[in-house]
Amino acid sequence: MTGRWVIIATDRSKRPSDFVRERVQIRGTSFCPFCYHHEAKTPPEIMAYRPDGSPRNSPGWTLRVVPNKFPALGIEGILGRQGEGLYDKMNGIGAHEVIIETPDHNLTLAGMPASQIEDVLWAYRDRIVDLTRDRRFKYILIFKNHGDAAGASLEHTHSQLIALPVVPKRVLEELEGAKSYYGYKERCVFCDMIQQELESRTRVVAENDGFLAVAPFAPRFPFELWILPKSHQSAFEDSRKDEFEQLASILKDMLMRIDKVLDLPAYNFIVHTSPTPDTENDYYHWHFEIMPKLTKVAGFEWGTGFYINPTPPEEAAKFLREAVV
Amino acid sequence: MTGRWVIIATDRSKRPSDFVRERVQIRGTSFCPFCYHHEAKTPPEIMAYRPDGSPRNSPGWTLRVVPNKFPALGIEGILGRQGEGLYDKMNGIGAHEVIIETPDHNLTLAGMPASQIEDVLWAYRDRIVDLTRDRRFKYILIFKNHGDAAGASLEHTHSQLIALPVVPKRVLEELEGAKSYYGYKERCVFCDMIQQELESRTRVVAENDGFLAVAPFAPRFPFELWILPKSHQSAFEDSRKDEFEQLASILKDMLMRIDKVLDLPAYNFIVHTSPTPDTENDYYHWHFEIMPKLTKVAGFEWGTGFYINPTPPEEAAKFLREAVV
Repeated sequence: MTGRWVIIATDRSKRPSDFVRERVQIRGTSFCPFCYHHEAKTPPEIMAYRPDGSPRNSPGWTLRVVPNKFPALGIEGILGRQGEGLYDKMNGIGAHEVIIETPDHNLTLAGMPASQIEDVLWAYRDRIVDLTRDRRFKYILIFKNHGDAAGASLEHTHSQLIALPVVPKRVLEELEGAKSYYGYKERCVFCDMIQQELESRTRVVAENDGFLAVAPFAPRFPFELWILPKSHQSAFEDSRKDEFEQLASILKDMLMRIDKVLDLPAYNFIVHTSPTPDTENDYYHWHFEIMPKLTKVAGFEWGTGFYINPTPPEEAAKFLREAVV
Repeated sequence: MTGRWVIIATDRSKRPSDFVRERVQIRGTSFCPFCYHHEAKTPPEIMAYRPDGSPRNSPGWTLRVVPNKFPALGIEGILGRQGEGLYDKMNGIGAHEVIIETPDHNLTLAGMPASQIEDVLWAYRDRIVDLTRDRRFKYILIFKNHGDAAGASLEHTHSQLIALPVVPKRVLEELEGAKSYYGYKERCVFCDMIQQELESRTRVVAENDGFLAVAPFAPRFPFELWILPKSHQSAFEDSRKDEFEQLASILKDMLMRIDKVLDLPAYNFIVHTSPTPDTENDYYHWHFEIMPKLTKVAGFEWGTGFYINPTPPEEAAKFLREAVV
C-alpha cells in the first residue's frame, strides 16, 4: 500500500528475551501535574468526565483533557501559507491536547478496567468531533507515548492529540495506496487484508465480534500490532457504543499481552482514520498501530524508509497469542 | 520535494546543552573483531588498503572492508518476487558490508586525519562501483551509525553498505520530487537550493571550493546537516580525486563541529546518490545527510511522517559555524 519493504530475519529471529530494554515502571517520585489537586498546574481543562458533578479544574474527574503546556502547534492565528524562495512555510497553527486517562498515578492503560479504557476512546472521539468543526484543521491524530524510551516525558498515563492544518504524509500514502487498490478492485484493501488474515490465521493474535488484532505482514518493528474493525469503517469517530466496548476490550487484551510477553516495554500507538471532509468512504479503513519500542532506528532506516525487523510477524503473533493474561 | 512538513519551535528553541544524552566515548574494554590480529574473527575481507603490501586477512591494512557477520541481506540466490494473497514478498538478496575505517580502536571518524577520511570515501566509491556490476542490485546505500544511541553495536569506528534489490522508498521520493521540479523548471532543485542558501547564508555552516555544508530549511532533527557538491553531480561515485579531498576536509570539519557543539553525540549519516542505471542525470544531486541523535522519534512522527524539531536550522547553523575547532 505504501511502497515500503521490510527485511524480516527468518533464520536468526529474535525472541522476546533477546531485546535489551528498560522496563517501564511507575516511580511516582516527582511532582505530577496530572494528579488530583494539581489541576491548576495544567492549562484550564477543555473537557473532563466528572460523574460526581464536581466543578471544572478541581478533583473529582475520572478523565481530563487539557491543552499541552508546551504545545507543538498553537490554536491562535491564521495559517499564512507562503513561499521563501523555493521553500514553503506556514504558521504553526493547530491544537495539541493531552488526554489524562485516569487520576490514578499508579495505573497504566493496560491495567485500567475495560470500562475506563472505553472512556478514553470516547474522549478521543469527543475531541475529534469537536475539532473537526474548525475548518482550518485537515487531520486530527491521536497517539500515545508510553515510557521514556517511547518519548513520554511524564509517567502519569496519558494520550495526546494533535490537530494539523495539513493531512500527514503517512496518512496520504495510505490513502493513495488504498484509493489506487480500490480503483483496481473496487474493494477496500484493508477489508481484503482482514479476510486473508482470518483465513490464514498465522498472524492473528485475537479477535472478537467487532475487531481483529493482527501482526501485519510487513511490520516495521518487532511485535508491531494492528487493531482493525472487521467490517468496513472509514472513520474512528463514527464508531458505535458497542464497538467502543469491544475495542476497549481487545485493546486492553493486546496491551496486557505486550506487557506480559515483552516485560513491560515502552511503546507508541497511533490511530489512523480518514481525514475530513471525506470521512465516509469505501476505500479507507481506520485502525490502531501499536509499536513496542525494542529496536533502534538507525542509518539504514533513515536512508531508505525500509526497516530491518528481527522478529517475523508469525512468531510475534504466536508469542502474543499464547501468552496467559 | 518529499511532501514532508517539519514543525520548528521558534519561541522556546532548544540550545545544544538542553538535550539530554550520553556522550559517545570509546571504552575499549571488550574484545574487538575490527582490531589488528583479529582479522580471522570477521568473514574474509572483500577489499583492503594495504600500503605495506601485507597479505589478505592479516594486520598491516589501513582500511578494511568485510561482509557483515550478521547480514540483513544475503548475496546468494535469486530474488523470486512473488505474491502471497494480496501481499508481495521476495528473498532477502543483497549485500551487507562493513567498512572498517581504521585499525586504531581509539579513533573516531572526526578524529582521523583528512587523508584517512578521504580513503574511507574512496572505499565507499570502490565498493559502489564493484557492486553496481551485479545487475540484481538496484541501489547501494552507504551509512554510518556512530554510538550506541544511533544503533552502533561495535564501537570501533566503521561505516556500512547495503546493496538492495529495489530502490529505497526515501530515494524514490527524492527522485520523484526532483524529477517533477525539473519538469517544471528545467533546473535541478538541489542546485537551486544551494544557490538560495549561498545567497541568504543564514543556514550555511561552511563551504569550500567544491562543497557546501548547510542546515536544511526543513530539518527532521535538531542540528541535522547536509553536505552537497556545489556544482551539479548526480552520482557520488563519479567524484574526482580533488573532490574527494575537499569532501573529506568538509566532512571532518562538520563532524568535529558536531562533536564540539553537542559534546560528542551519537549520530547517523547516510549518502544519497542516483540509482543505477540512470546515474548520470540532470535532476538528482547526491549528498550526505548527517543526523545527530538528540531527540526521540515518537507517536507523532510514526503517525504522520512529519517531525517536531526543537531547534531552528538558522540557530543550529550559527552554533556550528561559530564553534572553534
